[in-house]
Amino acid sequence: MRIDGRQYDQLRPLSLTPHYVKYAEGSVLISVGETKVLCNATVEDRVPPFMKGQGKGWINAEYSMLPRATQVRNQRESVKGKLGGRTMEIQRLIGRALRSVVDLERLGERTITLDCDVIQADGGTRTTSITGAFVAMAIAVDKLFKNQALSAYPITDFLASVSVGIVNQQVCLDLNYAEDSSAKVDMNVVMTGSGKFVEIQGTGEEAPFSRTELDGLLAVSEAGIRQLIEEQKKVLGDIASRIGVGNHATS
Amino acid sequence: MRIDGRQYDQLRPLSLTPHYVKYAEGSVLISVGETKVLCNATVEDRVPPFMKGQGKGWINAEYSMLPRATQVRNQRESVKGKLGGRTMEIQRLIGRALRSVVDLERLGERTITLDCDVIQADGGTRTTSITGAFVAMAIAVDKLFKNQALSAYPITDFLASVSVGIVNQQVCLDLNYAEDSSAKVDMNVVMTGSGKFVEIQGTGEEAPFSRTELDGLLAVSEAGIRQLIEEQKKVLGDIASRIGVGNHATS
Amino acid sequence: MRIDGRQYDQLRPLSLTPHYVKYAEGSVLISVGETKVLCNATVEDRVPPFMKGQGKGWINAEYSMLPRATQVRNQRESVKGKLGGRTMEIQRLIGRALRSVVDLERLGERTITLDCDVIQADGGTRTTSITGAFVAMAIAVDKLFKNQALSAYPITDFLASVSVGIVNQQVCLDLNYAEDSSAKVDMNVVMTGSGKFVEIQGTGEEAPFSRTELDGLLAVSEAGIRQLIEEQKKVLGDIASRIGVGNHATS
Amino acid sequence: MRIDGRQYDQLRPLSLTPHYVKYAEGSVLISVGETKVLCNATVEDRVPPFMKGQGKGWINAEYSMLPRATQVRNQRESVKGKLGGRTMEIQRLIGRALRSVVDLERLGERTITLDCDVIQADGGTRTTSITGAFVAMAIAVDKLFKNQALSAYPITDFLASVSVGIVNQQVCLDLNYAEDSSAKVDMNVVMTGSGKFVEIQGTGEEAPFSRTELDGLLAVSEAGIRQLIEEQKKVLGDIASRIGVGNHATS
Amino acid sequence: MRIDGRQYDQLRPLSLTPHYVKYAEGSVLISVGETKVLCNATVEDRVPPFMKGQGKGWINAEYSMLPRATQVRNQRESVKGKLGGRTMEIQRLIGRALRSVVDLERLGERTITLDCDVIQADGGTRTTSITGAFVAMAIAVDKLFKNQALSAYPITDFLASVSVGIVNQQVCLDLNYAEDSSAKVDMNVVMTGSGKFVEIQGTGEEAPFSRTELDGLLAVSEAGIRQLIEEQKKVLGDIASRIGVGNHATS
Amino acid sequence: MRIDGRQYDQLRPLSLTPHYVKYAEGSVLISVGETKVLCNATVEDRVPPFMKGQGKGWINAEYSMLPRATQVRNQRESVKGKLGGRTMEIQRLIGRALRSVVDLERLGERTITLDCDVIQADGGTRTTSITGAFVAMAIAVDKLFKNQALSAYPITDFLASVSVGIVNQQVCLDLNYAEDSSAKVDMNVVMTGSGKFVEIQGTGEEAPFSRTELDGLLAVSEAGIRQLIEEQKKVLGDIASRIGVGNHATS
Repeated sequence: MRIDGRQYDQLRPLSLTPHYVKYAEGSVLISVGETKVLCNATVEDRVPPFMKGQGKGWINAEYSMLPRATQVRNQRESVKGKLGGRTMEIQRLIGRALRSVVDLERLGERTITLDCDVIQADGGTRTTSITGAFVAMAIAVDKLFKNQALSAYPITDFLASVSVGIVNQQVCLDLNYAEDSSAKVDMNVVMTGSGKFVEIQGTGEEAPFSRTELDGLLAVSEAGIRQLIEEQKKVLGDIASRIGVGNHATS
Repeated sequence: MRIDGRQYDQLRPLSLTPHYVKYAEGSVLISVGETKVLCNATVEDRVPPFMKGQGKGWINAEYSMLPRATQVRNQRESVKGKLGGRTMEIQRLIGRALRSVVDLERLGERTITLDCDVIQADGGTRTTSITGAFVAMAIAVDKLFKNQALSAYPITDFLASVSVGIVNQQVCLDLNYAEDSSAKVDMNVVMTGSGKFVEIQGTGEEAPFSRTELDGLLAVSEAGIRQLIEEQKKVLGDIASRIGVGNHATS
Repeated sequence: MRIDGRQYDQLRPLSLTPHYVKYAEGSVLISVGETKVLCNATVEDRVPPFMKGQGKGWINAEYSMLPRATQVRNQRESVKGKLGGRTMEIQRLIGRALRSVVDLERLGERTITLDCDVIQADGGTRTTSITGAFVAMAIAVDKLFKNQALSAYPITDFLASVSVGIVNQQVCLDLNYAEDSSAKVDMNVVMTGSGKFVEIQGTGEEAPFSRTELDGLLAVSEAGIRQLIEEQKKVLGDIASRIGVGNHATS
Repeated sequence: MRIDGRQYDQLRPLSLTPHYVKYAEGSVLISVGETKVLCNATVEDRVPPFMKGQGKGWINAEYSMLPRATQVRNQRESVKGKLGGRTMEIQRLIGRALRSVVDLERLGERTITLDCDVIQADGGTRTTSITGAFVAMAIAVDKLFKNQALSAYPITDFLASVSVGIVNQQVCLDLNYAEDSSAKVDMNVVMTGSGKFVEIQGTGEEAPFSRTELDGLLAVSEAGIRQLIEEQKKVLGDIASRIGVGNHATS
Repeated sequence: MRIDGRQYDQLRPLSLTPHYVKYAEGSVLISVGETKVLCNATVEDRVPPFMKGQGKGWINAEYSMLPRATQVRNQRESVKGKLGGRTMEIQRLIGRALRSVVDLERLGERTITLDCDVIQADGGTRTTSITGAFVAMAIAVDKLFKNQALSAYPITDFLASVSVGIVNQQVCLDLNYAEDSSAKVDMNVVMTGSGKFVEIQGTGEEAPFSRTELDGLLAVSEAGIRQLIEEQKKVLGDIASRIGVGNHATS
Repeated sequence: MRIDGRQYDQLRPLSLTPHYVKYAEGSVLISVGETKVLCNATVEDRVPPFMKGQGKGWINAEYSMLPRATQVRNQRESVKGKLGGRTMEIQRLIGRALRSVVDLERLGERTITLDCDVIQADGGTRTTSITGAFVAMAIAVDKLFKNQALSAYPITDFLASVSVGIVNQQVCLDLNYAEDSSAKVDMNVVMTGSGKFVEIQGTGEEAPFSRTELDGLLAVSEAGIRQLIEEQKKVLGDIASRIGVGNHATS
């Protein structure tokens, strides 16, 4: 049994609170166990310089932790005067993952920025950010669609993410902070609603892992992500029915 | 009547949710109307270099807005690489205000950092931060006291803050964003439980104000702060009974 | 009696040397006691991005101390790589104060930048900067007027500033550095020639102050500012006669 | 057939020039096809602050591209004033990968810094950096060992890295820049001499990938890394015989 | 004849005002024609890290221009967030030049920082800074000597600097801004009281210069520096008599 | 005899490897003794803002050292977040020197950037950079000429640079690092193919130098630069025959 009484292949309780702040075009507070992330989507009618004139949109993410999201207060990056490597790595991952399920041409020359601010951190903040940011993005995109700003629906599939790892020789799903700290292998998996991989990032800094162990990690994560996507569908309601519609027309 | 139906001397609804995050020594989510600020207090057993060896503690504040706390997304200061002048001005104000009601010698060589992170901004974020940070600080200090880390109670009085202004020739209490944008005079007042001024910052950039107008602004703000302090007392419960005890022994 | 022999309500000797540097459109070296500030006004035919296309001008200030303006050498902010909170707070105050007596529409799409560089600091550098910067700005604006670049006179009133405080239980006008260091209450007041308040910033970090004390501080500062404005008029000569002319035409 | 005439599972020509610069404790110029990286190892008798007093060493990497390593000149990060996200991500990966095959306790309180400077970039600069940095590190560590500074040999296994991807529906090994630009899936694999995974980073931003495709990518990369390690052994000569010796004594 | 009526080998009028600010250990306002530089010397009882424990002192300089020292306002380096290349080049030159006439062992473990702030710039600000900073340094060192903090006199010779150039095919001494802008060759020379060169920096970006032209430039600059040193001696009074005393005892 | 067996007026062995990297418009690896610098020229069809609309081009240089170019690892300036004074001084020198032999009007509205990256440093890195950058620039310019992008040949003369110094009372040519560290006088000279001076930078921080010593330094450097230019001609081949052609038509 695990430190918090879960089965090895069991997720922590998930909660998604949509429309958490009033100004953002899409907003959701996601909590996975004690990890809480506020995900806000902003839609702007312009694209970054490198995307100009292509008739396509862009999806971008920013990630940050509040100073007391953690047990020991972490110094603000605004005070340090720069973003750390971990922050950049995570926000690049979130943006890349979300873009994989958006048809940027259908989005038009718009940028959607996903702000993922960690209110409380108990492991899995990057995977939780992806799962929550997808919902915030879907809400924002659906508003555009309802306002008839889009000719075709740009979200092509669902997307969620989970962490897995090997703790005490055992493959475990959805590590909390205590488990993460003692894991020998740590892997983050991002997957679509149709069960395809978008990102696999596995690290065995403490102990390299075998092909058999890898297979175990992938199997558990796939099942976990399916459950997360079911929860996303519930909270999205009728928005969910439009996701992925008309996909065969593109690519 | 005002834009949101309030009387000219009426506060917006106040809500204080203590223990909002689990790791901080003191934590409160304060909302004043649609303005929401998460105030977390961190206690550390050290002081900044300029305070070393004096046997005294220090109180410090940091203030930040989440990008979508505002109608138009505001760029992160961590991305800009530096704190703006407005941020610095506000966090200096919060720190100074809180220090005015703490006996730093009784605190001992400790630093309390108040992180005020604005989740949603609808006017009065700096005054709301002060009112909420006082409660977070009181919770944190009381833990120290209960752990017998302090020989005398260091908080010498209550403290709260409110904004006032002149909108359409009328003195108004607790401006929301729409009122603040059209105010000719804007003033922030910080006051103690015993009714003394800690800070008065009045600005008439749009239109200088007379002595008579100043008197009106001060009268309204004093009444508003009294009500805020009543709310602080309710949420602090028995902690409130220890604040200000043994004051005559110092200063 | 005070440390330098002054009466409680007595200003330090004021000196204003206009045209101190030859390149600036307006230039004045102001000294108030041992505090010396070089105030230079620059006129540029453009406005900051946020003001573009409004047909209005802008007034901006920058404040800095030379390293040996102070008893102990202070490190340059250019070497630190960023402006400190105190600097930003002061230069925002100076700009805001000056804008309160300028009709920005009459100024047209121009920016006037006031550089206030403290050569020697003996208390009151921010209030001295405001008093001196007003004169430098008036000289620069008058050149524009004489060159027939303006259709109406944009300076609507005089403006000066002074510090007051409570030192040894006594309200004192125009604190020098020694007094400022031991003051329990410290207040900066900016006022127009017609006796209206533009800014009041009072701080009782060391000891909150009562309403009665506040009234005493305001009375003394008002009298002091009147004297400062008399001195400004003398050095401005016939320029003074044009300030405030045609005010009724605007708002 | 591929753009440069290679088989789908064929590596580009590899060359390792040891002792390329004279001052570094370990130095190798690695070229993989047209990609050239200078890898220099520096040994210092101190550890970063977070490692102090643990009796353990540390391995760290820095990665940079010369401005004309690329077709279009890329601006120096020293001129930009900060490291980009891609750079940080890569140097964190290199350091983590190398640490996985070093027993930090055997290394003692020393830091080895691997500087990987890309002279010419034609795809695979991060995987080439890892393969080359391992050799530079081995040379530096062996000098320590020969100088009897170490009681047991700290390098526990060989380590190399390669990129794989799906280009035109085909799994390809060791992508050059042209292939990398058109790949739908891109994966970097780091593996030890004993065939265990240290890092797997697969990205399907353009098109999510199935489990079957993943299996194909892993199979090809494993074979490629085996060949790279054979080349490392040749150039390391008798140093190779000491790597991994006495491993069972630790962990 | 020159633009301002001077002979080709004639200096502009020089003025040295000692003790210009009251807090600095040595202070002089130097003006050479319309160029005005405030040179302040600060003495601190510590040395930079790289000089620690050698029983020797250090001389350091910082150079800056006020924004309206120039015809067009130049942006503050504190606002830009970094020092420009020109500033660094100049302050390194000033420091190096002054160190050449100070016996750092006799100075003891102290740092003298020379702050050279340009109030008004009309050509030759770096050479004027050196000539003025020498005087400020001499005043500060002499105070140390009078306070019996030094066992031997550390200033070993006088030092001054001047610019020369070729304007309209003619060698000219001490260029003002207009001349400097049209000069084909520009040279700064720093020389000691005993007529030896400390620095020669000649640049022919617009037109390379011959050996004959170089000889002409050096001859004129040598004569100019002799006159500057005579002026330094006058203003230093009896301090001048101690400079260079006991030189043979060192090195 | 010198530490490495050379005559006092003897250069170290020079090697110039053209076309060292494949992407740059001009590329040369230069080695002078153990000093190795990679010089790459980039041609861009635009000019910096301050040169716009003048129908002229610009030549710019950037200089950097790899961390292990030196005996002790030097920290990257990208990690420090800013360029040091020495770097800025050197790259300004390189750019200025190269511009002196280019007719910027003939170049047209183009920028040539010379990147000088020091692979290994054994003294004379700035002079070696200039000598190598000239060759890289000539290769790049000749490509433009052959592509008929230029109406007249813009390089007006050859250019090379060498260091000289006084070591043990003896004038020495082309100092290596050990000599440079013990030199009392250090001078860098840049000269054209027609024997005119472009830059002279002599420093006697340790010991001021006499006019006689200066004459000796200049004589030796002139002879050394003649030899360097002979080597440049050999490696440039027929490109050399076009340099300086049609010069009388300009200036």
